Amino acid sequence: MSAVSAVPVATIKFYLRENLLAAGERSAPNQADYGPDHLSRLRLIRSLIDVGGLAVADARRVLEAIDSDLPLQQTFDIAQRAVSEQIQPTDVSTVALDRIDAELSGWLVSAGNPGRLAAARVMDSCTAVGQRDARGWLNRYAQAALLVAEADLDEIEALSDRAAQAQTVVVGTVLGDALFSGLRRAAQEHVSALRFSPTATAHHQNPHDTCP
Amino acid sequence: MSAVSAVPVATIKFYLRENLLAAGERSAPNQADYGPDHLSRLRLIRSLIDVGGLAVADARRVLEAIDSDLPLQQTFDIAQRAVSEQIQPTDVSTVALDRIDAELSGWLVSAGNPGRLAAARVMDSCTAVGQRDARGWLNRYAQAALLVAEADLDEIEALSDRAAQAQTVVVGTVLGDALFSGLRRAAQEHVSALRFSPTATAHHQNPHDTCP
Repeated sequence: MSAVSAVPVATIKFYLRENLLAAGERSAPNQADYGPDHLSRLRLIRSLIDVGGLAVADARRVLEAIDSDLPLQQTFDIAQRAVSEQIQPTDVSTVALDRIDAELSGWLVSAGNPGRLAAARVMDSCTAVGQRDARGWLNRYAQAALLVAEADLDEIEALSDRAAQAQTVVVGTVLGDALFSGLRRAAQEHVSALRFSPTATAHHQNPHDTCP
Repeated sequence: MSAVSAVPVATIKFYLRENLLAAGERSAPNQADYGPDHLSRLRLIRSLIDVGGLAVADARRVLEAIDSDLPLQQTFDIAQRAVSEQIQPTDVSTVALDRIDAELSGWLVSAGNPGRLAAARVMDSCTAVGQRDARGWLNRYAQAALLVAEADLDEIEALSDRAAQAQTVVVGTVLGDALFSGLRRAAQEHVSALRFSPTATAHHQNPHDTCP
């Protein structure tokens, strides 16, 4: 399996020991056979840990959720907790929580949603460093987050079987953060180039660019 | 300063040793005076490290950029590199880079932008786990990233002096990731509640909610 997947044997053994990956069919004393399901599970583990940055215990938790019969909303919850730092309601100010709740007015969000607390903590941090919320900064972030969440759910609803949907919930939640922050850096460079040096030629113009 | 800032003395000493914070005026053999600039710098360091998750070396680098006379675009670049994993062009496939470049067609993005490479790596990962790009998933992420970048730049342009702008570039880049991923989790819960259980009552309805 190492040869096909380009994953080192030691890494595969580690995943087996950590119960992330099921053991193969033993075909000889020192040899085990792995099928296509094993290979795709191996690739999923690599994505979650290497690209998504999940800890082994969190990866195990989301893999169990994929294999379970849990409703999708619970799978979402497990995936969200796996990618979120543990923040307690006592770690954030009431002012910041009120600010976030006012922004998410009308959203169906539980009080313990890890993102609600994380966003409130950022607000506290902004206040501490004197960062103002100018020109609707927070509101525009919330609107963009809604667009991304709609895209995530559309992606899930495009699939018909439960197992594929659950995997998409996990992969989308875990890799979506990395994708968005990457695109955000590209967009920042683009928008700041437009505003600060519109005639810049040092920039790599996209080869597919059809704009003047 | 520890009493005013609620930062432990040992942490402040650590920041001093690591040259993140300048030494105060010595007022007695074992006593130093710190002014309001020290306090605000201390709060900034806390935000970057504790909430933004920066390593000490990266925090030092972005603080130097704030204190420098570098053009804002270079400050952006330093802030982006501080929050981005080091990915080499050889770490991602040409297919994935082409996919991202096609998506960012018309954007002024340099070939070495860390976000471009990070986004391409996510694409490789999606391909490896058989994740499809259904219903314009990638494109919608890119559009949302553009909205966020516009909000970031508007926030910066609302300020008049260079030092405040540079600080906002850094704070916005570092904390913006945490803010967005938090709001995204709240939005995911909201949208999935609407779609999967529109009559759910277990959800905490926002107290500020004025919708029916």
